[in-house]
Amino acid sequence: MFYLVGLGLGDAKDITEKGLEIVKRAKRVYLEAYTSILTVGKEALEQHYGREIILADRDMVEQGSDELMAEADKEDIAFLVVGDPLGATTHTDLILRAVEKGIQYRIVHNASIMSAIGCCGLQLYNFGEAVSIVFWTDTWRPDSFYDKIAVNVERGMHTLCLLDIKVKEQSLENLMRGRKIYEPPRFMSASLAAEQLLEIVEKKTAEDSTQKLALTAETLCVGLARVGAEDQKVVTATLKQMASVDLGGPLHSLVIPGHMHPMEKDMLRLFALDDSVKSFLL
Amino acid sequence: MFYLVGLGLGDAKDITEKGLEIVKRAKRVYLEAYTSILTVGKEALEQHYGREIILADRDMVEQGSDELMAEADKEDIAFLVVGDPLGATTHTDLILRAVEKGIQYRIVHNASIMSAIGCCGLQLYNFGEAVSIVFWTDTWRPDSFYDKIAVNVERGMHTLCLLDIKVKEQSLENLMRGRKIYEPPRFMSASLAAEQLLEIVEKKTAEDSTQKLALTAETLCVGLARVGAEDQKVVTATLKQMASVDLGGPLHSLVIPGHMHPMEKDMLRLFALDDSVKSFLL
Repeated sequence: MFYLVGLGLGDAKDITEKGLEIVKRAKRVYLEAYTSILTVGKEALEQHYGREIILADRDMVEQGSDELMAEADKEDIAFLVVGDPLGATTHTDLILRAVEKGIQYRIVHNASIMSAIGCCGLQLYNFGEAVSIVFWTDTWRPDSFYDKIAVNVERGMHTLCLLDIKVKEQSLENLMRGRKIYEPPRFMSASLAAEQLLEIVEKKTAEDSTQKLALTAETLCVGLARVGAEDQKVVTATLKQMASVDLGGPLHSLVIPGHMHPMEKDMLRLFALDDSVKSFLL
Repeated sequence: MFYLVGLGLGDAKDITEKGLEIVKRAKRVYLEAYTSILTVGKEALEQHYGREIILADRDMVEQGSDELMAEADKEDIAFLVVGDPLGATTHTDLILRAVEKGIQYRIVHNASIMSAIGCCGLQLYNFGEAVSIVFWTDTWRPDSFYDKIAVNVERGMHTLCLLDIKVKEQSLENLMRGRKIYEPPRFMSASLAAEQLLEIVEKKTAEDSTQKLALTAETLCVGLARVGAEDQKVVTATLKQMASVDLGGPLHSLVIPGHMHPMEKDMLRLFALDDSVKSFLL
């Protein structure tokens, strides 16, 4: 059996009892380590689970599924994923490959940022399409996520912005020279996401200052860091303020609220950066 | 501390290690038992956790929060919720009341149907607004959920339909006579949800047969039962077929796919009711 086991969002103890039993008895245990991270590393997980864990990078998962699933027709193999195995990052491709190989699979669900985001107080059924905000480079500055947020805002829906993660990336130079030297991992902060959104708003205003934009510098947003961990942080602020809020270590998310019910406003007020934000939420 | 602890979706072993530790040490343990259920009952949970559990019905949660939170400023109180405490059913009102009373709270997240629905293979970031489908009566047949599904379909987004649950409901007669006699619990099946949707489609067609509707009897949908449990069942079929598919015991959910990527089609094909459904998914 090939088990896809969700680890939840905080630390080693966010695994479910069912998941832990599988980890303890599995022949091999892999950890998907390139689309999300816990607040603790591989070593803490190994110590807590009492098992050796094999790090699975993108190459191994996307191309090396033979290795990953070897003997899974006879033995239990556990593939650990931060959050839910089919949440913000989906591993349906692994399921399809397992089925093709005639290997049975099972999913052990856990908390995903896609639902745990409810901790800010905005109701999940009022969220529209989620978006991904990617790191801009000097030459690549996509802004299609703005349009999706705008559609949600116009329909009164909230938007969860998943923020970019760069793990095991090569610099252009190292890539071209075929050198397997990797850059340090980078995790987009809520402040950088707000900054990029503000830049899009400024650009659009410069192009046509008469248009009414779905977002402005004064739009409220919610920054969240380390959801589910002991030191979780949630801050409600304007986009302009958020661009200089430091929420600490990764992972961060950003939410753009749409139309809010009174109870949703009451919740966001709990996390207001200052009194001016509170007054927006009355 | 007032802990809101998610139980996940399957059985007693879907609690997280963190959640279980809290249940074991809490002074009192409540189970929210009116918006969702596990495949096992209170007794199985009590036996597995080794703790007495107090059933919290709607009245106790909505009006009796004094009782619920008594001593939570000095002791640990655990409030267990199937799924995630802020998932399909949100308990933000309890959080607001705790804060008002000066009681600290913490959320222990877990799998919610809002994210575990990814197990059908449709990607979570392609879902639009979720809808609730309620039991119709002879005189009350709301259909606003149809319009929300139609908006999602037109935008190419998938829709998760949460299906109605009636627990501890009184008949009109018993309600009027003030008799505290409750009807047996009822859980809407995917087939009944499909039936109600078909009736709306038929009504709209009868009103104006020239209009192009977002849904028809031949629209594909996905019925899911007992997501996360050992005997989970997923079936892809047309709405017309789904109306007579028996997925077994509760809880059920229904998904209406929007535009599908090839890999999403490949996944739905795994659950096809018959070859004709498979051919729709090529």
